[in-house]
Amino acid sequence: QLGSDHEWQRWIISFLMGVAIGFIAFVASISTKSISKFKFQVVNYCNSINIKLINLVLGGTFTYMEFWVAFCLYFFMNSGLALAGSWLAVYFEPTAAGSGIPEVKGYLNGTRIPHVLKFKTLVTKLVSMIFAVSSNLQAGAEGPMIHIGAIVGNGFSQAQSKEFGIRIPFLRSFKNDKDKRDFVTTGAGAGVAAAFSAPLGGCLFSLEEVSSFWNSTLTWRAFFTCLIASFTYTFAAKKIGNSTVSTIIFDMAQDATKVSQSEYVGLVQIIVFLLIGAIGGASGALFTLINIKVVELRRKYINKVKSYRVLEVFIIIGVSTLLQFFVPMLFSCQPMDDLIIKAPPGTTLGQSYNTTLEKVKEHLAQFTCPDDYYNPMASVIFATNDNAIDNLLSTNGLYEINSHRIGIPVLIVYCIFYFLFAAYTAGCGISSGTLIPMLIIGAAYGRIVGLILRSIFNDSDTIDPGVYALMGAAAFMAGVSRLTISLSVILIETTNQLPYLLPLMLTVMVAKWVSDFFIHPMFDLLIQMKYIPYLEPQPHRTMKLLMCKHIMAKKPVFLCEKDTLGNVLNALRNTSHNGFPVVSNAVDRSVKGLVLRSQLLMILERLSDVYIYNTEQIYSHDQYITKLAWKLPNLDDFRFDPEDYSTQIDFTGIMNLTFFTVNEDFAVSEAFTIFRSIGLRHMMVVNSVNKLKGIITKKDLLEKNCEQKYRDLRSGVELLYPEDNPNDE
Amino acid sequence: QLGSDHEWQRWIISFLMGVAIGFIAFVASISTKSISKFKFQVVNYCNSINIKLINLVLGGTFTYMEFWVAFCLYFFMNSGLALAGSWLAVYFEPTAAGSGIPEVKGYLNGTRIPHVLKFKTLVTKLVSMIFAVSSNLQAGAEGPMIHIGAIVGNGFSQAQSKEFGIRIPFLRSFKNDKDKRDFVTTGAGAGVAAAFSAPLGGCLFSLEEVSSFWNSTLTWRAFFTCLIASFTYTFAAKKIGNSTVSTIIFDMAQDATKVSQSEYVGLVQIIVFLLIGAIGGASGALFTLINIKVVELRRKYINKVKSYRVLEVFIIIGVSTLLQFFVPMLFSCQPMDDLIIKAPPGTTLGQSYNTTLEKVKEHLAQFTCPDDYYNPMASVIFATNDNAIDNLLSTNGLYEINSHRIGIPVLIVYCIFYFLFAAYTAGCGISSGTLIPMLIIGAAYGRIVGLILRSIFNDSDTIDPGVYALMGAAAFMAGVSRLTISLSVILIETTNQLPYLLPLMLTVMVAKWVSDFFIHPMFDLLIQMKYIPYLEPQPHRTMKLLMCKHIMAKKPVFLCEKDTLGNVLNALRNTSHNGFPVVSNAVDRSVKGLVLRSQLLMILERLSDVYIYNTEQIYSHDQYITKLAWKLPNLDDFRFDPEDYSTQIDFTGIMNLTFFTVNEDFAVSEAFTIFRSIGLRHMMVVNSVNKLKGIITKKDLLEKNCEQKYRDLRSGVELLYPEDNPNDE
Repeated sequence: QLGSDHEWQRWIISFLMGVAIGFIAFVASISTKSISKFKFQVVNYCNSINIKLINLVLGGTFTYMEFWVAFCLYFFMNSGLALAGSWLAVYFEPTAAGSGIPEVKGYLNGTRIPHVLKFKTLVTKLVSMIFAVSSNLQAGAEGPMIHIGAIVGNGFSQAQSKEFGIRIPFLRSFKNDKDKRDFVTTGAGAGVAAAFSAPLGGCLFSLEEVSSFWNSTLTWRAFFTCLIASFTYTFAAKKIGNSTVSTIIFDMAQDATKVSQSEYVGLVQIIVFLLIGAIGGASGALFTLINIKVVELRRKYINKVKSYRVLEVFIIIGVSTLLQFFVPMLFSCQPMDDLIIKAPPGTTLGQSYNTTLEKVKEHLAQFTCPDDYYNPMASVIFATNDNAIDNLLSTNGLYEINSHRIGIPVLIVYCIFYFLFAAYTAGCGISSGTLIPMLIIGAAYGRIVGLILRSIFNDSDTIDPGVYALMGAAAFMAGVSRLTISLSVILIETTNQLPYLLPLMLTVMVAKWVSDFFIHPMFDLLIQMKYIPYLEPQPHRTMKLLMCKHIMAKKPVFLCEKDTLGNVLNALRNTSHNGFPVVSNAVDRSVKGLVLRSQLLMILERLSDVYIYNTEQIYSHDQYITKLAWKLPNLDDFRFDPEDYSTQIDFTGIMNLTFFTVNEDFAVSEAFTIFRSIGLRHMMVVNSVNKLKGIITKKDLLEKNCEQKYRDLRSGVELLYPEDNPNDE
Repeated sequence: QLGSDHEWQRWIISFLMGVAIGFIAFVASISTKSISKFKFQVVNYCNSINIKLINLVLGGTFTYMEFWVAFCLYFFMNSGLALAGSWLAVYFEPTAAGSGIPEVKGYLNGTRIPHVLKFKTLVTKLVSMIFAVSSNLQAGAEGPMIHIGAIVGNGFSQAQSKEFGIRIPFLRSFKNDKDKRDFVTTGAGAGVAAAFSAPLGGCLFSLEEVSSFWNSTLTWRAFFTCLIASFTYTFAAKKIGNSTVSTIIFDMAQDATKVSQSEYVGLVQIIVFLLIGAIGGASGALFTLINIKVVELRRKYINKVKSYRVLEVFIIIGVSTLLQFFVPMLFSCQPMDDLIIKAPPGTTLGQSYNTTLEKVKEHLAQFTCPDDYYNPMASVIFATNDNAIDNLLSTNGLYEINSHRIGIPVLIVYCIFYFLFAAYTAGCGISSGTLIPMLIIGAAYGRIVGLILRSIFNDSDTIDPGVYALMGAAAFMAGVSRLTISLSVILIETTNQLPYLLPLMLTVMVAKWVSDFFIHPMFDLLIQMKYIPYLEPQPHRTMKLLMCKHIMAKKPVFLCEKDTLGNVLNALRNTSHNGFPVVSNAVDRSVKGLVLRSQLLMILERLSDVYIYNTEQIYSHDQYITKLAWKLPNLDDFRFDPEDYSTQIDFTGIMNLTFFTVNEDFAVSEAFTIFRSIGLRHMMVVNSVNKLKGIITKKDLLEKNCEQKYRDLRSGVELLYPEDNPNDE
């Protein structure tokens, strides 16, 4: 049937996905905020008792008891949350640990990874992430939201859940690889869009970072899904969460002085931004290196025992909480009054003194200080991530100079603390992302630079530490992730600093360059460490010098056009291949088609009853197709009599005729390009009369395999060049 | 040699490209502005004499003489500029007419179009476009800038110009298709980036609209090139042009009231935006339809005679200028004083009355009005495009309510005038783009909606016509071009209205949907009309039902592994094919390789002296390779003795071994995907013993050809279904 392409159903699914992802992001955000708020209220209440006592003895000794009560409460709440989150991610569904970005990238590159797209993973990930973030671990929610978005995308595209046996009745399921991939890609983008309230950034993130296959129809659908996800999130936050949330989550322009546009960026500033970019890139590389080493050691010594993993999380949160609570004690309280510019005599300002004071109080932590005083270290370290970011990115205000609210020493200690903890935490046994930690580290580092410059030039009007913090964040994030367009868009979308776009892009660029010089991007390294076969966008240079005959698997398992049941069973049992070449006969081996493992299983199912292993139940063919037709049978579910093994199976009507053959001298770089561009899984290599000589699958095309083959060839006596560059003289 | 990939040279070229494109955009912008300024100064000087006379007789009759002098000056300047621009684009280099976007898209899709990427085209395009825009034709500079960017990209990637015989000595040339395409793609993006001062928008535009092949390395290089182009433009404008230009060219936020974020968008507004989107999309479709019809008629009756084309431009500019000058006479003068909010008694405002008055004067045209009065129609129609856009997008100001500066009747007349003229002008014999006209039409339409709403609800505080104008512009532009992400980004980048991103995206989406319902995107239709074979991103649905044997060219011209000179010459002379299959021998026809026309020409060059036709000069092989090695010889340049025709040529060492063969039953949709994904040009179809049966090239895969083949098959008695869906039962 010359059917429609079911395009409208794709749009409905995209819409539903967007709503679901936006709503999940809202649930995650409101739960995290509520838990954090409750936690700090409890702790502050205890501290407030303290403060009264301090006032009584006029800045004298603490009454230790109440203080320790506050600490213990904070410690138990943090570690309780972290342990719960860790337990879920370690015992309940281990795939849910970490950010999930490497797994999603791997899946979209064409690798099947078990459990990654299951509903159970989604739930575990969500709850574990909420606990992780609200426990004040140095971790963010954005990475997990990407994974969650991807799972939602997969779920809706299938219009069913195998785990729960439910199907969405009026929707067609898009079971083929391409459609599934497309929905997972747009879902991952919508996850970012909802988490950052950055619809464009999300769309571009899925394009730049997670996807391996992209086409212009997908651009348009990703755009739509991200838009709906952002809308749903904002709408839910307004109506249900009753918050005054805007689409711009860290609005820097809101209370910035109206600097005339032409003064925004001078030449000196650009040089400073370049330096920030370079150093940010280098420290991003260092962060990546530390994290990768930690992950390596963790694999070796910790990951093997589940309880060790939970214990590790407990130790991290314990030490972190201790530092969060006691490091601020080393810094003295400061009066909030100092932060407010007073109106010159005879004039009035737009805002009253008290309004401004209220505004200042919102962002700063009183901690153990007297009223109207604040502890600068506690304002960043003993606070939620969002609050810390607000402080780090704050600009020269119109009515208050708040840019010296946090001093240089505080920022240096905080930056180092966060850097080390974030680098260690990423990848431990809890669901957590690194994007927000990267933003915090970078913003702290940038702000330090801004404040130093300001004290050198003694110029508090034109040097705005908030802007330097933004550049620092861009530099460090680019240094770790190597994102370019999507990073710039996400930062501009979240901070509303469009006039700084050009210098921001410049900083990102320099950071990426410097960082590329030192080390691979973090996500790519994690993919390698997880042994996910991943094809890079471009062929490796050795591939240009190799031919298909050099890298192909030389003894492919094949089936004949008419083959026996026994051979089919052997092929299925003895290999884990997903596709088998079908040839004319075992002697000529002229390639006729390709048959997939799933097709073979469906044929076997028609030839035999199916015994479902774990339930011990037996289904006849008719029962099977009515009850379980959407579930592929397992090889172990079949029972065949050995005497049936000689039954002939004819593949002519079944096998795929759209298969790929290349000759033995075909360049590997071109083969790579085809695999990478169209998501091919099997390529058969034939000689000049179409006789099967070998087969190439994705793993043969991995960079390290090709480099190895190339070295083998060079060390042998095989003549490579004369054959390889036939056009050279 | 396992050489480096010359990656750093690519970056140097990208940098140079960015600088060159940014500088060209600056030259274009400053020339246009200077010419326009001079023009209006001359005309206004004449008018000012008038005004004094009007003042003398106190608003009485005109002294017609001076008025007519002003009109004649304006008319002659406009038509002179337009005629010069048209003459260049018609006689000097006809490829330079129009926007050039369809040609660039076609080239990037893999079609060679002569002259499109020549330096001569660049110069003609640039000058013609400067004249067109400064003649107040209803046309913009952005389309041509895209084409210019593409030419610059091509020029630098070749590191040489054949026309001028120059080479950049230290740069390697990237002669292969892929590299050329990549540089042209990034160049086109940089053109947009520089023209709109929108680095992100430019990058995304090249990704979404112009490119057919994209990979993540390219993202990063496009990002860099666009950044450099924007920087160069801004820097040159500041230092050389001495302008206070910012990166945000139509800054709406600069003088907007500080609306609290949460009030930005309510539910009612969203519904209105949806309606604006729907109507904008429909009118975009109408605009496309009118333009396409005009282009069709123009091809038939005008384009055949060159002087007709110039005459047509003269008539357009004549009528347009007449209307520009006389339509404002129908509208009465209004006092500027009315536009300024006076401070309530006892208070002061931030700006003095006079400062505000100066600000207001900047944007409005006095025309024939007395001092401190302005003519609302002249302020848009008798003004540069930039000035008109500033007026159309102006928001509720902080110190002045300027949103009623242009009334509804004026806007309606202006909108219709611009719509008709822009729809007619696009594609006439001058270098001109449609992006800015689309923006103006849409903004005028949106502003009308905003002002109507405002008078209905009688609410001048929360209903901001500037915002509706932005939405109108987004809707109309999406309706014509179907851009999504890049359009949103460009509009946000140029107007600095980030808080409105979400509603803007929604409007774009609705407009695209509605418009998709009526008609194809304008650029696609233009590509079809120019007979450029263009492969869409997705295979057409008929392709899923066809096999390669149905669409292939059945009698391919082939060469044998060892063939005679005579046969080679025949193949070259009798066909215009760019590639020839090489087979074992004429009987077996077992495919061995593929040889390109260019390779054959190089072989011939080695076998004979080359006679350069037009110079009558004879080059030996040695002379040729030293003097003209970078120039491919022409088939007509060779002289062979007929007795040499039996000379044997051996292709074994020359032919490409990396060629594509598929079997006859291979699905056309998959073949299409390969062509589209990797930019393939030739695919050979073989039977099961590798015997050549046919060849498929790009034109066989065009939608209309496949639809035709499918209809032929259905009307014949061939059985299509049973073979086609072998897995169905």
